[in-house]
Amino acid sequence: MLTDQKENELRTSFASQGLLRTLGAELREVAVGRCVIEVPFSPAVTQQNGYFHGGVVGALADTAGGYAALTVLPAGVDILTLEYKINFLRPALGDRIVAEAHVLKAGRSVTVTRVDVYVERNGERHLCAAAQQSIVKVISRPGE
Amino acid sequence: MLTDQKENELRTSFASQGLLRTLGAELREVAVGRCVIEVPFSPAVTQQNGYFHGGVVGALADTAGGYAALTVLPAGVDILTLEYKINFLRPALGDRIVAEAHVLKAGRSVTVTRVDVYVERNGERHLCAAAQQSIVKVISRPGE
Amino acid sequence: MLTDQKENELRTSFASQGLLRTLGAELREVAVGRCVIEVPFSPAVTQQNGYFHGGVVGALADTAGGYAALTVLPAGVDILTLEYKINFLRPALGDRIVAEAHVLKAGRSVTVTRVDVYVERNGERHLCAAAQQSIVKVISRPGE
Amino acid sequence: MLTDQKENELRTSFASQGLLRTLGAELREVAVGRCVIEVPFSPAVTQQNGYFHGGVVGALADTAGGYAALTVLPAGVDILTLEYKINFLRPALGDRIVAEAHVLKAGRSVTVTRVDVYVERNGERHLCAAAQQSIVKVISRPGE
Repeated sequence: MLTDQKENELRTSFASQGLLRTLGAELREVAVGRCVIEVPFSPAVTQQNGYFHGGVVGALADTAGGYAALTVLPAGVDILTLEYKINFLRPALGDRIVAEAHVLKAGRSVTVTRVDVYVERNGERHLCAAAQQSIVKVISRPGE
Repeated sequence: MLTDQKENELRTSFASQGLLRTLGAELREVAVGRCVIEVPFSPAVTQQNGYFHGGVVGALADTAGGYAALTVLPAGVDILTLEYKINFLRPALGDRIVAEAHVLKAGRSVTVTRVDVYVERNGERHLCAAAQQSIVKVISRPGE
Repeated sequence: MLTDQKENELRTSFASQGLLRTLGAELREVAVGRCVIEVPFSPAVTQQNGYFHGGVVGALADTAGGYAALTVLPAGVDILTLEYKINFLRPALGDRIVAEAHVLKAGRSVTVTRVDVYVERNGERHLCAAAQQSIVKVISRPGE
Repeated sequence: MLTDQKENELRTSFASQGLLRTLGAELREVAVGRCVIEVPFSPAVTQQNGYFHGGVVGALADTAGGYAALTVLPAGVDILTLEYKINFLRPALGDRIVAEAHVLKAGRSVTVTRVDVYVERNGERHLCAAAQQSIVKVISRPGE
C-alpha cells in the first residue's frame, strides 16, 4: 500500500503541473505500481472533429505512466519521461478519457510502464489508445 | 508549392482545433511535405518543474506531423493519427517550443512523418525531442 | 476457434519464412486473436555477451504480432508490418524466448497488437520485453 | 575521428555477435556518432514473400544504432538497448539492406539514435524503414 507521505508527494506534484490544470485532469486512483487519471470532455481539448485531441490522449497517458513509476521509486526522487509510444485504436469521442497505467519493470535507472486509455460515453467504455513509456530517475536539485 | 486552396484548408482546420487554441499554438510555416508549429511558454503548459510538459511537446509533434501529412494528400481528405513515438532529449525549458515535421513516405493509406522539436531560449535553439508518426487517411463524412 | 483452413494457411506461411527457419522459431500456439512463438537458444542468435540479441527478440515479437493479426483477418489476406516498438526489460539470458501476442484492435485497414516476450531459464520465466505493433492488410496478388 | 583503439573495440564486439554472423551483416563504416551496417540478401533472411523480413530490418537498425552510440561513449563501456521503434516505409525487396545510424543525443546514462534503412536493388536505393532507439550504458563486469 502506498504510504501517506508518498501519496501526498504525488498529489502535490500533480497539483503543481500547469498543463494538468489546463486540461482539467483529475487523479482518480493511485496505488503501488498503478495510477489512473481522467480528463473530462471540454472544447479546450478537442481536435477538428470534436474528438479528444490525440495530443491530449498522449499527454494523459504520459502523465499516468509517470505517476505509476513514481509510486515504485523512493521518496524525493524526481523523474523525466525518456520516451513514449502510443497507438490510437479508435476516435476518442465521449464524456471523458481515463488513462490506467501500470509498471512493467522498475529498473535501477529506468522504469517501463504500459498505459491503456479508455473513452467513456453514455456509460459505455472503450479502449481508445495503448501506450508504452520509459521513465528515468533524476536527482532533485533545489533551485534548479 | 502548396495551392492557396490547400493552405486555406489547413489553416481552417488548424483554427478549429480547441486544443491548439488552449495551448496557444501557432502555424508558423507550411509547405509541401513540411509543417512548422510553435507553442510559446505559459504557465498553462508546464509540468512540475516549470518546463514545457512532455505531453505538450508530444501534442505539438503530433499536430505538426499531421499537417505535414495533409500537405501531400488530396484536398478534402481527413486524417487520424495511427500512432506516434517521441524521444525526449533534454528538458524543454525556454521561451517557446517549435516542431518541424516532414513527410518520410506518403503511402496509399498510411503516411509516415518525422518530427524534430526544438526549444528556444534567449535566442539559442536546442533539439529537445524527436518523433516518428503514422497518419491514416479517412473519408470525411458530413455530419459525423 | 480458428478454422482448420485458417490454421493451415498460417502454418504454411510460417514455414515459408526463411528467417524463421534461420532462427529456429517454432509456432507454439495459435488461436483467434492470439499467437505464441518461441526461439530456442543457440549461438546463432546471440549478441556480444551471449544473451539473445535484441534484434531476435524484436523479430520474434514482430512475427508473433503479425500472426495474431492474421487470425482475425479473412482468409487469403496478406499483411505487412507498418511499425513496431519494443521495450527491453531485462537481458534475455536463458534456454528460450517465447513471444505471446494478442490483438488489441482489428480495424478496417490496420490491426494493432501487443506482445509480451518471456525468457525461460531453468524452469523460471521472466518478462524480458514488451512490444506494440501495427499491421496493415495488403491484397495478395499472384506472381508478385 | 575515431581512435584506433575504439574502432578495434567495436570491430571485436561486432565479430562476437552470433546473430550478425547468422545474418551475414557487415560493418561498412564507423565514425564518431555514426555507423553504417549492411546485410546482403539471402534466403536465410526472408519473410513469406521473399522480401527481407521486417525482423531483420529491425535487428539491423538496432545494431547500427547501438554501434553509433558506442562511438560516443568512453572505451570499455558496455551498452544495452532500452527500446527501439521502427516504421516500415516500403517492402525491402533487393540485393541488400543498409542501415545508417547517427546519434541524436548522448546523455549521461541514455543515448538516443536515429536510423535510416535503405534497400538497394539494381543500383537504386530507397529508404525502406526509419527507426529511433534508446541505448543505456551498463558497467562491464568480468565473468558476468
